[in-house]
Formats: sequence, structure tokens, C-alpha cells
Amino acid sequence: MRTYFDCMPCLIRQALDAVRLITKDESIHEQVLREVLRVTSTADLHQSPPVMAQKMHRLIRQLTKIDDPYKRMKKHFNTFALAFYPKLQRIIAESKEPLETAVRLAIAGNIIDLGVKSSLKTRDIYKTIDEALMAELDLTTFDDFKAEAATAKNILYIADNAGEIVFDRILIDQLGTERIIFVVKGRPVINDATMEDAEATGLADLVRVIDNGDDAPGTIHESCSEEFHRCFEEADMIIAKGQGNYETLSDFDKNIFFLLKAKCPVIANHLGCKIGTTMLRRQNNTYSEGIKHEHKGILNKVSR
Amino acid sequence: MRTYFDCMPCLIRQALDAVRLITKDESIHEQVLREVLRVTSTADLHQSPPVMAQKMHRLIRQLTKIDDPYKRMKKHFNTFALAFYPKLQRIIAESKEPLETAVRLAIAGNIIDLGVKSSLKTRDIYKTIDEALMAELDLTTFDDFKAEAATAKNILYIADNAGEIVFDRILIDQLGTERIIFVVKGRPVINDATMEDAEATGLADLVRVIDNGDDAPGTIHESCSEEFHRCFEEADMIIAKGQGNYETLSDFDKNIFFLLKAKCPVIANHLGCKIGTTMLRRQNNTYSEGIKHEHKGILNKVSR
Repeated sequence: MRTYFDCMPCLIRQALDAVRLITKDESIHEQVLREVLRVTSTADLHQSPPVMAQKMHRLIRQLTKIDDPYKRMKKHFNTFALAFYPKLQRIIAESKEPLETAVRLAIAGNIIDLGVKSSLKTRDIYKTIDEALMAELDLTTFDDFKAEAATAKNILYIADNAGEIVFDRILIDQLGTERIIFVVKGRPVINDATMEDAEATGLADLVRVIDNGDDAPGTIHESCSEEFHRCFEEADMIIAKGQGNYETLSDFDKNIFFLLKAKCPVIANHLGCKIGTTMLRRQNNTYSEGIKHEHKGILNKVSR
Repeated sequence: MRTYFDCMPCLIRQALDAVRLITKDESIHEQVLREVLRVTSTADLHQSPPVMAQKMHRLIRQLTKIDDPYKRMKKHFNTFALAFYPKLQRIIAESKEPLETAVRLAIAGNIIDLGVKSSLKTRDIYKTIDEALMAELDLTTFDDFKAEAATAKNILYIADNAGEIVFDRILIDQLGTERIIFVVKGRPVINDATMEDAEATGLADLVRVIDNGDDAPGTIHESCSEEFHRCFEEADMIIAKGQGNYETLSDFDKNIFFLLKAKCPVIANHLGCKIGTTMLRRQNNTYSEGIKHEHKGILNKVSR
């Protein structure tokens, strides 16, 4: 998915929010703001929004001189989510359709997006889990997911955030651990999961974990490592979590299932759904629907 | 009031909204977006947000080759508001404190901001009027307003939008027309009232109307005409409507009463109130409180 005009003010808002979380130094806020404005003014809109976000977060880390600004937050969220793991297991144990329930819980993990709400309460998590369990889900796509999962030899599971990966573990338990390669980011960016998080949450003991070699809040294929490219190529089923991975992988002709909540109007429009939809979407559908939707509503053509 | 960091993404969003209202040509949307990003990246943050907005709307008019993009909309809103005038007069006739009611109605006119909601319905107007009549109002400041109005020799009434000026007429009726100079914009910008609107709504037959010689969505003192400067200097009471006039005049040491609704977090923070507050604010208070509030919350210092 390319960058739409509406992504621009949103990216600038995000840059400001991000740098404010890290430092109170307003001269750094201003430097980040001005540089992001400058860079976005000549941005290549054919690229996906995470390409811009990657530059933005590199700049923030460079100016604040903090390599992993969300380190403590990620650690906290991993621990916080791990405390829910037994509860999640019980939900699965009581489910009549454990795989579907696990898909819903994996999406719940994405909805929670622990990085965004630093003051998250236990009751918020329960509420989100309940909502994901009750939400409307595309059951035709779930049937496809189930059929593919039944026969896939190599499943590439592309993770999103720290904390959330504990919820992914529930789905991985259902899929079977042997054939799964779990992908985390190569270097820290926002609250995205890295190898450290995979280790802290026990994922690394359960499945083969690789890092993608990059620090974008998504999966920019051309920036990823050769190891990632090989695994991506060999996978006969790919599960990709969250908006960033949707934005960066939605144009690839691969057997990808996206699990996410559509949190912004641009993504919702691209998916052809309402904001807030709990989304299980298969790539092939997405690709053709993306084309169908791209000249509608707020989605702009790119003129250069 | 200077431009705060949070104004930047908002200005960019406004530029996009504004140009989309005028043309469906996405290459023009993109030109406006890129140019606004470029210009904001080096903007002087000591200047008020309307300085940037003025540049932005000039650019939009230049690229779309439409001198007065909101002309039809303004005409429609004047007519629409005029239909309410007898109703507004009845409200005053039935009021025990007609001046206070007139102040509330003038703020209601600002709240409606007809330019923003092109699909405004009659029931929305009634609802807004009811809310403004019931809203909490700073009655100490109203007492000051009343006392000043009782003795002022020259009142400068700085208008905001087309349509809204019909609501201003109700307050002008109460203040007495002889000593009032009513100020409109020198050239079209968004839905701001110009001489044409003052004539269309009968204001020009009622009071002396001058234009400020400028096309900013606010009152940038240094860009205004000599005639405006003279009237501004001679006025012993100034009434300024809306956010744009607050943003541009809040640092002047003059006897100004601002009538507005605080529609955005930056303004609300600057005023020290909640978003959505119906605001009658006297300059002197504002100035000292502005100083008090300026290092708090989302209000940034300007480092250059």
C-alpha cells in the first residue's frame, strides 16, 4: 500500500507524539517536527507509510541519542501480557473452535497495542479480549485460513508488537510449532517486537525465530535480510500482524493472511471496511479489492 | 498567540480539507500538500497560525485559479442565517438580560461556523443556539463587558465568518449602531466575511463597515490597512470574534473582548479552558493567563 495524502498529517502527528514520549526537550521536538515536514514534502508517495515512519523514528533515536526508547515499556508489556497467558489458554480450552478463537485472540493482541496506551489497565485487556471474541469475523476467510493451516508446510508468522506476541503464542500453540518461523524486527523501532522480546516471552524456546534485519515499523521487503527473503520465499502460508505489516505487504503476490484491527480511515478504506473492524483478510482478496477501492473516497492517485 | 507544534499537523490537514472542497484534481491536492509541508518546515513559529494559513489559502487559490472558492457557500450561509434573524430578535425580546443574551447569540454564530459543515440543518442551528443560551459564561467578564459597553465611545467589532455576521448584528443592535465600526476581510479567504457579505446581510446599511485590507483568516495587524490601524488605535473597546482573531490579537495590549468557542486543544490550553467552552474573554486576563499557561501541557516553547 502506498502513502496516501491523509497519511501525511498523521505521520507528522505521530512523530510529535513519539518524540514527546521520549524527551521533554522541546528543541528536539522542534528539530524532529521540522525535519519530518521537510522530508515528507518530497516523499515518494509510491512507497508505503512505514518507509517514512522508519526515517522518522531513526531521526528521533539519533536526536535523542537513545537507541531503544521503548525498551522499558516493551519489557513491561511483555510481563503484563504474560500474566494473561494462562487466562488465554483457558479461553482456548473452553472453545468449541479453538483455532478461530486463537485467531481472534491474536487480533485482540494487536488491538490492545500496548505501546499506544501506556496507562493500560487489566480491565481494558479483558474488555478488548471480549470484544475480539464477539466481533464479526469473515468466516469464509477463516475457512480458507483453516484449510491452508491444515496443509501448509512452512508458515511464516510476521509479528508486530511486544506484549502482543504473547497473544500470538496462543495461535502458534494451535498451529503447531514445528513448521513455524516467527519474524521479529532486526533493530528496535517504537514498541515493535525484537529478538529480545521473543526471548523474554518464551517464543524463542518454542519456535524458530528470525529477525528481519530491518528497523521499519512494518516489513519493507527490499530492506530486509537475505535470511528473511529466503524464508518469505519458501513459506507456503504467511501470517502478518497489524497495520504496519499490512501497509508494507499488501501488494505482494503471496499467500498472506493479515490479522489486524483497522485503526485508521486510510487503512479501513483500503480494506473496504469500517474503522475499528476486526480483520482477518487474505492477500488475494485484498489485492484485487485494493485495486477496486483505490480511486475511491479519500484514497488519492499519485501523480508523480 | 504563536504557532505551537501541534498546529502543524492540523494546518496540513486543513490545507488538504480546503483544497478538496474546491477541486477534485488530485494533482492539485498533491501540489498544495507538498508546498504546505515545505513551507511549514521552515515556518517562523513566533508568528500566529493564521500567518501560515494565509499563505496556504493563497496557494490554494493560485493553484485552483479560483479567487473566491467559497463565494457560493458564503452567499448560501448569509441567506440561511438571515432566515433566523427574526427568531433571534424574538429571543432578545423575551430575554431579561438582552445584552448577555446577545453576547451568547454572537458566540452561537461562531460555534455554528457554517463554512465547516456544508450540510448544516435548521435543527443544528436551533440546537447550537439553545446550547449557547444555556452554556456557562464568565459572568465577571460579562459585567466588565457591560460596563465597558456602557461608556465606550468607539467600538471596533472585528467579524469572523459569513453567516455568523447575522448573529453579530443582534449584538450590534444591543450595543447601538452609531459608535460601531464593523471590520471584515479585505479579500476572500475561506468563508470569512468580506464587504460583499456585510452588504448582503444589511450590516453595511446599519453601521460603518471597513475592510482590513488583508486576506488572512484572522487579523494580522502588520498586514492590515492604514485605515484599520487608525480605527484599531482609536477604539476604546474592541470585540473580536472567533479563533483566528484570538490567535492573531491575543498579544495586543488593547481593551479587547474575545467571543469564541474554543474548538481546538491548542486554543483551549492557551485560554486555560476545556475544548468546547463558550468563551467570553477579556484581553488583560488572557494575556496574563497566556503567560502562565504557556509552558504547560502541549504548549511548546519556541527555540529559534
